[in-house]
Amino acid sequence: MRRVVAVIGGTEIEAEVDAAAERVGALLAKEDAIVVTGGRGGVAEAASRGASLNGGTTVGILPGRERSEANPWVEIAIPTGMGETRNALVVMDADAVIAFPGAYGTLIELGFALHNGLRVVIVGDWPLAVGATVQHATSPEEAVEFALASTSTR
Amino acid sequence: MRRVVAVIGGTEIEAEVDAAAERVGALLAKEDAIVVTGGRGGVAEAASRGASLNGGTTVGILPGRERSEANPWVEIAIPTGMGETRNALVVMDADAVIAFPGAYGTLIELGFALHNGLRVVIVGDWPLAVGATVQHATSPEEAVEFALASTSTR
Amino acid sequence: MRRVVAVIGGTEIEAEVDAAAERVGALLAKEDAIVVTGGRGGVAEAASRGASLNGGTTVGILPGRERSEANPWVEIAIPTGMGETRNALVVMDADAVIAFPGAYGTLIELGFALHNGLRVVIVGDWPLAVGATVQHATSPEEAVEFALASTSTR
Amino acid sequence: MRRVVAVIGGTEIEAEVDAAAERVGALLAKEDAIVVTGGRGGVAEAASRGASLNGGTTVGILPGRERSEANPWVEIAIPTGMGETRNALVVMDADAVIAFPGAYGTLIELGFALHNGLRVVIVGDWPLAVGATVQHATSPEEAVEFALASTSTR
Repeated sequence: MRRVVAVIGGTEIEAEVDAAAERVGALLAKEDAIVVTGGRGGVAEAASRGASLNGGTTVGILPGRERSEANPWVEIAIPTGMGETRNALVVMDADAVIAFPGAYGTLIELGFALHNGLRVVIVGDWPLAVGATVQHATSPEEAVEFALASTSTR
Repeated sequence: MRRVVAVIGGTEIEAEVDAAAERVGALLAKEDAIVVTGGRGGVAEAASRGASLNGGTTVGILPGRERSEANPWVEIAIPTGMGETRNALVVMDADAVIAFPGAYGTLIELGFALHNGLRVVIVGDWPLAVGATVQHATSPEEAVEFALASTSTR
Repeated sequence: MRRVVAVIGGTEIEAEVDAAAERVGALLAKEDAIVVTGGRGGVAEAASRGASLNGGTTVGILPGRERSEANPWVEIAIPTGMGETRNALVVMDADAVIAFPGAYGTLIELGFALHNGLRVVIVGDWPLAVGATVQHATSPEEAVEFALASTSTR
Repeated sequence: MRRVVAVIGGTEIEAEVDAAAERVGALLAKEDAIVVTGGRGGVAEAASRGASLNGGTTVGILPGRERSEANPWVEIAIPTGMGETRNALVVMDADAVIAFPGAYGTLIELGFALHNGLRVVIVGDWPLAVGATVQHATSPEEAVEFALASTSTR
């Protein structure tokens, strides 16, 4: 089975974060990992763009009820109609989660990821201490390396 | 955007239904439609097998929390941890639904599909009258033709 | 633990059905059973009104995110933000379900109730054959009698 | 409409926290506020006990599919079958949330509460910085005062 990595983070992001998230998506695609996001703007869109432009598979778990809500780089759009409650599904069973700074929506996903025992890699300066066994990466390369390290294909 | 067709039906099925569901999956793959199922056995597995063996994309919306629960023909496994409540997601926004006879789980999906105004095609003898604007197909070919008829790519 | 009975049915109903659903709610309250509904109009409102006016406890499992969405007879409003997917929760674990004729939303709830093995009592002329082990009641009194028959308090 | 306050926190707690959570439940009951919890052990049970013993109404939003999963002080048990995803529902639309220290499950609920703009009061020493507009209370009395302050009955 191909590896799955969730990429999460804010919906309104700066150019620097956009570039880093796109790079993360590109690197994951080159490793043949499936990229799962919340399917909309910001980090989700940047990571999906990076993966899609490099031949990767992108999945978007959407808050609303319609596929058309997904950003254009999402290949597989999964409408849920559950609003932010769908954040639980974004990180339910990935091999790892790469998190860029975000707001409470991202905090929720981080909480679910940690609760589920997923490998969590944070890129950049996370504003909230989660006091947890997370790894901190200083570059997209390091983030993907940490995310896929010793992650056997399952 | 590629068309999406949900294929639903029982989990314990006879060889004839298995063959027909596999054929439906194969035909959908040839039309480049994404095949969405509940991701486990029976009709879901047969349709996914047919699609996968013909180069199609298969999505499985799973009741449990782990990707490993999916049948081996599911390419994109979406764990939900919601049990049968996830049936709502299987048919939330597809271009059409092709339904083989099934039990109450299938009835639930049919109810959601009709509620959402999806095009519904029933193959074979459905035991429950749903008194609805469904189409009845007598073969896999007819089912796929009905499902994709006038369904513009969106 | 007090018994719990879900009362389901259409949101746009005729006066006769409204009166019967209100009577069902009243009878359930007199039996000290908790009345669970979808929390909004039609049968849900009539049953809640009947229960509330007779000192009963009424629970409404709401499709939206705000308690204010509930009809005024709902004492305990549970917002879900899940839309019709919340129908699964309305009938997840009641001692019985009393169903008045409704549309696809009611069909979904009936499917979940039957899937979960709940005791199902249908009042009036149900338009859809569910081919199932349901009981048919011809009056509110009979519906409540069937619903609570041999239902030990648990 | 009666006010609703969610009380959240760990499932394995020390005697001191148990006593404080029970006191919070008691005080909320005396203010006629409905107490909503996750319905199981720890803080949820202590707060429900305190409310129930003082004539209050207690609601438990359960992770599993059966009412019997609730602790004995829950009057209205709402099974969801959604596991930890149900944490979103516990804090979807309360007038306020009172949070005792907990693990990731509590972090998730706090994230949802903050995302939804609820008034959040933290009692005791929260191990995770949420960097947010929360209030910190040093006693059950203060927690309830903060939670209900300027919360008009709606």
